[in-house]
Amino acid sequence: MNVDSILFGSAYYDEYMPYDRIETDFQMMKEAGFNVIRIAESTWSTWEPEDGIFDFTHLHRMLDAASRYNINVIIGTPTYAIPAWLAKKYPKILSYNKNGQELYGHRQLTDITNPDYLRYAERIIRKLMEQVKDHPMVIGYQLDNETRSAGAASLETQALFIEKMKEKYPDIEDFNQEFGLDYWSNRIASWDDFPDIRGTINGSLSAAYKRFLRDVITDFLTWQSNIVREYIHEGQFITHNFDYSWIDYSYGIQPEVNQFDAALCMDVAGVDIYHLSQDKLDGAMIAFGGAVGRSLKKDNYLVLETEAQGRYDWVAYPGQLRLQAYSHLASGANSVMYWHWHSIHNSFESYWKGILSHDLLPNAPYREISEWRKEMLKIEEHLRNLTKKCKAAIIIDNSSLTGLDEFPISDTLDYNHILRWMYDCCYEMNLECDLISVNDSFEDYPLLLVPALYSATEETLRKLNTYVKNGGHMLLGFRSGFSDSEIKIYHDAQPHLLTECIGATYDQYTIPRNVSLEFDGKTYEVSEWMELLRPIDAEVWASYKHTFWNIYSAITHKRYSNGSATYLGCYIEKDGLKAIIRKLCEVAVIPLPYYTFPIIRKEGTNDFGKKVQYFFNYSSNNQEFIYDGDDGKELIGNTPVKTGERIILKHWDLVIIEEN
Amino acid sequence: MNVDSILFGSAYYDEYMPYDRIETDFQMMKEAGFNVIRIAESTWSTWEPEDGIFDFTHLHRMLDAASRYNINVIIGTPTYAIPAWLAKKYPKILSYNKNGQELYGHRQLTDITNPDYLRYAERIIRKLMEQVKDHPMVIGYQLDNETRSAGAASLETQALFIEKMKEKYPDIEDFNQEFGLDYWSNRIASWDDFPDIRGTINGSLSAAYKRFLRDVITDFLTWQSNIVREYIHEGQFITHNFDYSWIDYSYGIQPEVNQFDAALCMDVAGVDIYHLSQDKLDGAMIAFGGAVGRSLKKDNYLVLETEAQGRYDWVAYPGQLRLQAYSHLASGANSVMYWHWHSIHNSFESYWKGILSHDLLPNAPYREISEWRKEMLKIEEHLRNLTKKCKAAIIIDNSSLTGLDEFPISDTLDYNHILRWMYDCCYEMNLECDLISVNDSFEDYPLLLVPALYSATEETLRKLNTYVKNGGHMLLGFRSGFSDSEIKIYHDAQPHLLTECIGATYDQYTIPRNVSLEFDGKTYEVSEWMELLRPIDAEVWASYKHTFWNIYSAITHKRYSNGSATYLGCYIEKDGLKAIIRKLCEVAVIPLPYYTFPIIRKEGTNDFGKKVQYFFNYSSNNQEFIYDGDDGKELIGNTPVKTGERIILKHWDLVIIEEN
Amino acid sequence: MNVDSILFGSAYYDEYMPYDRIETDFQMMKEAGFNVIRIAESTWSTWEPEDGIFDFTHLHRMLDAASRYNINVIIGTPTYAIPAWLAKKYPKILSYNKNGQELYGHRQLTDITNPDYLRYAERIIRKLMEQVKDHPMVIGYQLDNETRSAGAASLETQALFIEKMKEKYPDIEDFNQEFGLDYWSNRIASWDDFPDIRGTINGSLSAAYKRFLRDVITDFLTWQSNIVREYIHEGQFITHNFDYSWIDYSYGIQPEVNQFDAALCMDVAGVDIYHLSQDKLDGAMIAFGGAVGRSLKKDNYLVLETEAQGRYDWVAYPGQLRLQAYSHLASGANSVMYWHWHSIHNSFESYWKGILSHDLLPNAPYREISEWRKEMLKIEEHLRNLTKKCKAAIIIDNSSLTGLDEFPISDTLDYNHILRWMYDCCYEMNLECDLISVNDSFEDYPLLLVPALYSATEETLRKLNTYVKNGGHMLLGFRSGFSDSEIKIYHDAQPHLLTECIGATYDQYTIPRNVSLEFDGKTYEVSEWMELLRPIDAEVWASYKHTFWNIYSAITHKRYSNGSATYLGCYIEKDGLKAIIRKLCEVAVIPLPYYTFPIIRKEGTNDFGKKVQYFFNYSSNNQEFIYDGDDGKELIGNTPVKTGERIILKHWDLVIIEEN
Repeated sequence: MNVDSILFGSAYYDEYMPYDRIETDFQMMKEAGFNVIRIAESTWSTWEPEDGIFDFTHLHRMLDAASRYNINVIIGTPTYAIPAWLAKKYPKILSYNKNGQELYGHRQLTDITNPDYLRYAERIIRKLMEQVKDHPMVIGYQLDNETRSAGAASLETQALFIEKMKEKYPDIEDFNQEFGLDYWSNRIASWDDFPDIRGTINGSLSAAYKRFLRDVITDFLTWQSNIVREYIHEGQFITHNFDYSWIDYSYGIQPEVNQFDAALCMDVAGVDIYHLSQDKLDGAMIAFGGAVGRSLKKDNYLVLETEAQGRYDWVAYPGQLRLQAYSHLASGANSVMYWHWHSIHNSFESYWKGILSHDLLPNAPYREISEWRKEMLKIEEHLRNLTKKCKAAIIIDNSSLTGLDEFPISDTLDYNHILRWMYDCCYEMNLECDLISVNDSFEDYPLLLVPALYSATEETLRKLNTYVKNGGHMLLGFRSGFSDSEIKIYHDAQPHLLTECIGATYDQYTIPRNVSLEFDGKTYEVSEWMELLRPIDAEVWASYKHTFWNIYSAITHKRYSNGSATYLGCYIEKDGLKAIIRKLCEVAVIPLPYYTFPIIRKEGTNDFGKKVQYFFNYSSNNQEFIYDGDDGKELIGNTPVKTGERIILKHWDLVIIEEN
Repeated sequence: MNVDSILFGSAYYDEYMPYDRIETDFQMMKEAGFNVIRIAESTWSTWEPEDGIFDFTHLHRMLDAASRYNINVIIGTPTYAIPAWLAKKYPKILSYNKNGQELYGHRQLTDITNPDYLRYAERIIRKLMEQVKDHPMVIGYQLDNETRSAGAASLETQALFIEKMKEKYPDIEDFNQEFGLDYWSNRIASWDDFPDIRGTINGSLSAAYKRFLRDVITDFLTWQSNIVREYIHEGQFITHNFDYSWIDYSYGIQPEVNQFDAALCMDVAGVDIYHLSQDKLDGAMIAFGGAVGRSLKKDNYLVLETEAQGRYDWVAYPGQLRLQAYSHLASGANSVMYWHWHSIHNSFESYWKGILSHDLLPNAPYREISEWRKEMLKIEEHLRNLTKKCKAAIIIDNSSLTGLDEFPISDTLDYNHILRWMYDCCYEMNLECDLISVNDSFEDYPLLLVPALYSATEETLRKLNTYVKNGGHMLLGFRSGFSDSEIKIYHDAQPHLLTECIGATYDQYTIPRNVSLEFDGKTYEVSEWMELLRPIDAEVWASYKHTFWNIYSAITHKRYSNGSATYLGCYIEKDGLKAIIRKLCEVAVIPLPYYTFPIIRKEGTNDFGKKVQYFFNYSSNNQEFIYDGDDGKELIGNTPVKTGERIILKHWDLVIIEEN
Repeated sequence: MNVDSILFGSAYYDEYMPYDRIETDFQMMKEAGFNVIRIAESTWSTWEPEDGIFDFTHLHRMLDAASRYNINVIIGTPTYAIPAWLAKKYPKILSYNKNGQELYGHRQLTDITNPDYLRYAERIIRKLMEQVKDHPMVIGYQLDNETRSAGAASLETQALFIEKMKEKYPDIEDFNQEFGLDYWSNRIASWDDFPDIRGTINGSLSAAYKRFLRDVITDFLTWQSNIVREYIHEGQFITHNFDYSWIDYSYGIQPEVNQFDAALCMDVAGVDIYHLSQDKLDGAMIAFGGAVGRSLKKDNYLVLETEAQGRYDWVAYPGQLRLQAYSHLASGANSVMYWHWHSIHNSFESYWKGILSHDLLPNAPYREISEWRKEMLKIEEHLRNLTKKCKAAIIIDNSSLTGLDEFPISDTLDYNHILRWMYDCCYEMNLECDLISVNDSFEDYPLLLVPALYSATEETLRKLNTYVKNGGHMLLGFRSGFSDSEIKIYHDAQPHLLTECIGATYDQYTIPRNVSLEFDGKTYEVSEWMELLRPIDAEVWASYKHTFWNIYSAITHKRYSNGSATYLGCYIEKDGLKAIIRKLCEVAVIPLPYYTFPIIRKEGTNDFGKKVQYFFNYSSNNQEFIYDGDDGKELIGNTPVKTGERIILKHWDLVIIEEN
């Protein structure tokens, strides 16, 4: 979805305000250069204070003000937080899961398969749509927010799961066999014997239920989308606020949602990206999160939420909010929207601070983003709708994530850590990557990186073989090709069909202690995981350095038809992985710049068909580099730039060069 | 409450004894100089083995023995541990809380709002009172013990809470507004929609429930007090055993009880103080706990429990039990009572050892406290009823504690840690402090220290302004004046009304990394918390040392009318805080001695109107100092002391000087 | 139970196989030298897929193949994992315990006191026995597997416990007195008032319930044994797979089973031993586990399970599987059986790998154990049925373990850690020890080591006194003789009756900080626990080095009649304990070799009445020693060896010398 203007704004909650200040707020937003706000999600109880009694006062106040100040509006359906009266009336709406029955209070605890919930949700969506659908400032709709299944496992929800299993396995013997249910006497002769899934110790069954819960979310968003689509006009869009896995900040792919599937019903993907700041601001999560956003619709995406002040330790140094905003655009975002306008004076997220602090006065963040907006507006047409074409792609896969959740490598090295380890190495080397699904086409990428593809169908494995055969260069990481789509381990030489293209196999693996490997003349520590590889017809790029494990290979490489497959059988320190990727970029003829993090380069093609390069300095020190692009113009300063020119980047600063 | 003689003794449980040895025990107690025992609390099932069947055999054995040996008795009501038959009969008596329904076994798990419990509690109290009220050895009564609300959240208890909310907020819209219930759809249109409080994510609501549970305890103790008062005689007192927050030992103020309110129904405050020992004995908790005890009735207090041997690592070095006993007296205690006489051979607290070990023979602790008693008796009339008059006070505040519980600074820096950080600095500098409530008068104190007064009414804030205006000197700590009494954050410049007296404001704060500040020529590390202060009309005493945060102030100071207000916007190492306090003592003209911890000085005025100074050595090494008081007499050795005399304190030893 | 041939094999599950490969498996097993497999346990739902419908197809496939390949079979009853239909039909079969009601899925969660469970268990056992009892390859039966009580605490199970208490304490007053129930109002006047045991805070009561649950297991296994015995033939044996306490591997004695009692109904003890590997392979757990196995029937034992590959970090270095197998034999094992033949492709233990990896192909472990088997077979008749006669014994005691569970020393130093501390010191010094119960005879051992015998009857204490009086040499560890069999602390001078033989006493103990002791000219650190000993008529071997505690003794020694008793009042570093043990070996005239770990010597007498000595090298480096036995023959290499000969052991290698 192309935009005429970068969307710039925040979530706005008139209903949370401690006193009436809507004119002040809109005036301040206008002065800051806002062209959009996101409203209405989260506050169902405001819109429907009692069953069937609707009150859209605050909504219309906001819409009317939006008209007066000419600020666009994205309407969110308020379904992710239910009113107390609804929970009282239909207690089963609160999810029954591994914790027992959830109590009312928190958001995202509803059982979204519950028919009563769905009936009430539909009604409030329709009532809301009727209020807003013809309002001229409304440009789009957000379905729910960061949708969750709340681990729903009521008898009714479990019955839906069993029904799906029945359909997939008409012969219950196939089910028993595929899931290995003989083990510990878990076999069932009748679907009526299916036990409470919450107690299962069967990793395949647990994984299947997690997949089912992801499908529940897809179905739910599709269902909402269908309702909303009945009302929307030409030019309005449907989106959703997708989030990421979370370790006190956005980190990896979201395990609880199949975002590829869920995005099918939408016009544009929306994401929320929260990241570390101050000395820990490195831009990696912005790039990673953006790559996810781009991948969902293979298009530009919206940043629907990102931090203004956020948590205590996210308060940005001067210049960082500006740097962050450009970083989003450089990844292909068509919006920078903050959560949220004002810090909240009560409840739960009082210290997840917005642009304004609790005093609601203009402050440092407000001034910095206002200034950025003015600066950016002058060059906006060169920045919006950036088209990115990466030479490398990394496969992301929820099924493998779940598989490694069921059968973890260790307490620390989960799927997302492996993924980010690989992604971050590329990022720091200035190798921009797409993130793709196993269902996507691999063919356009000279280089394909495959981290821990633990669960893969034979079809996928054949597709990878074919990719290599057709000339692709693949870096396959450890723990790949090990199990099928039901997390059943393949029972022949590992990594199953991929032995063909990698030309190596193994049947043992262990936790390395005092193990290292040498690659390209340097020694790297091996930790967490090592497979004891035996080459078949591959070249050995590295063996383990260890008294006993030295008889085994660690990295193998095989030229296979027109392409090559490199297998990395262990977890090594990042510098080691970077050395491998650097070598593979040579093999795949992908040029890499000589400068690396904290200098980050991102590029794309703008609406004028010109190549735009961003150069960021993610550090508190000045950095310099020799510009190696074509002659062009630095957009912010509007100054010409020549190939070979020495460019100095001040701390937390950037330049944007549009090639001639 | 004045005493004729320091109360010296312990809890005594004849009913726990493995065999009949009551004569031996009383003889040993008498020989040790006991003049009081505390009995009857904890063992309801002994007094009422079956519903309505009472057996006071052990009680009378103890009372009779007390008469024979002329030892006074404090009677405790046994209500904090219920009999098994009562829990069987009325299962709802066991508290229903966040854990679900509690199981029978532990003490303090009753729902003290439960009418059946209250009916049975009243009966056993009355039965007990009838047995003891006329006994000549009974000098006082202890209501319950370390009363807890057990987080009671049954529907019935919650209904009481809702009722209070209704009364306070007749218009439910005011309630929604004050508590910010629009957030996440928590708004209610009818009190009938009020959801189970246990699920709430609203910090204000959660805090209000905690306050309600504190009020439940106040009501309960007042109710008990009223019953007991029907029976008591002239000269008998009512007390309670108040405890502290707990981190393996007594540490800070007790969050679950409003001790100021609860103490209103009593004649004298009682406390139990448990502290570290051996190399970690520093006297700080004895001083802090004593300051709490003094504050509750603005009078001397009783130490109803302190450790004899206690836990494994509390076993005292030779001399420490003596030092501890004097330390209590020096804080204004009129009793030293141990928990407990004998170590218990079964159950739960077998290794919370009493004076006697499990062999029930005279041992090192028994001998040391006996000797102390003999030594102290000779000078007792100079020590009892010590009147203390501190020049500095520290505000303690349960509402702020709860506020910072709901919205924590970090995992480590909670309210009590901030309070103790401030208290301990004063203590180690030999600045004796009172602990006072926001409802107390501030006027008598030249110096007022205010740690983290996160929740404060506008009335309180005005009172602080007035205090400064009238000539007081206030050190205001970070996180003060931020929210109102319902933990709703004030929505103007922080710290709200206090900006007036401190002459500074801020709207951002963060977690310091590599931040320090310089004060009085020395550099101190800043950690955990920093507010980015901007002076309005205050003098800047210190700014942050940091690449970016150096534009903000850390400490500001303002002469305001006749007084001054110093604002400390961050958490710094103790030496830094001490430097600030030292400077403020100069400003407030409070002299501080040159010697500091491990030499601790405590002082007061005795019954003869003379000033008594204790000098303690809390260390394993000898210490010496130059005595700077008036000429007087060292009481223990009965030797004259002159100003300027060099005094040597042996390890874990002390001197007591009464000025002439 | 003597064997004609060492049992060598593994668990085998045809029912878990991803495809039919029974011929391949048996051929591979045969080629590896297997003479036994263990089948049928764990998979009740395979044998009885629906209530009353039995299907023994897989069983007969395995038995038939066993006949064809002449491999013996041990049949396990499948009762430790129930079918889903049984849990559906009788929900109460799933244990109701401290967690509430367990969910179906995991093994060992049944309430083995449940009558419905027992009825169905009996039926499947009988059906199974009918199938197998006459099969010529069946040599023995395993009752259940690693039986657990699942903490059963349903009202019905608790009623059984109360019934036992009633029987033991006909007068409820004795019960109240022995358990100290006055404390915290826990006294009951009627058994009907007995509260839910799950809430108890009474350590004695909690310990009694744990003992009851151990008795439940004894009763259950005895009941199974009686059923199985109705069917078995001459020459067939009954065993059980006993396990150990677990800290990611087998570690200490199993707290939940009284293995001495449970083994009474069996013909031979079986155990499963899992241990660390690679650089951490030290043989200690194999020796400890073997000593437990030997002790249960005072005879050789079976290793029914040990690791082939096991967990990620247990993958053995080359040579280690061979070393491990011999290590078992050297401890008196008559079998080496792996869990399990093949790695499993689904469910829970997919990464508890068997001999074969998931590819089911011959691999390094398969090759190594096959080669070992061939090597061992040549000398088997010299190794089997090894009779061991140790000069030292260590008392192991579940009641004391429970006591220290209820009243822990610290988070880290539990009973099993103390036991292993003592055992491992002996092991590393090459002092082979038996593990014995307090009910066993002590008289045959010149040296008796008694770790933390916290709970002991007076009868036991007298027995220890008598042992010393009769010439035994006892090392008594701290925390011994402190409480009776109901964990009631003795109320006279500690350690109660043992003061007589040790000639010392104490009434205080603490956690040592900066404390050490000097013994035999060296200084050793004291940590975790120290008792402040006072000698009565004992010699002081060491006092504490500490400013204040130096007045107390740490180690005392008393010649008592013909024997001696040494009391160690504290936990010291292993080298200190070794020095004490070394001195006691001198006193008890037990010769110790000069070489110590990583060279380990184990010895016994073989079927030819000859002394066999194993010398193991548990390290990655070569080791050498001077052989100090009689002239003999090295069995593996079949070469003569002479006294005084220098022998070199390669890394992870061994020699076996049979004296002439």
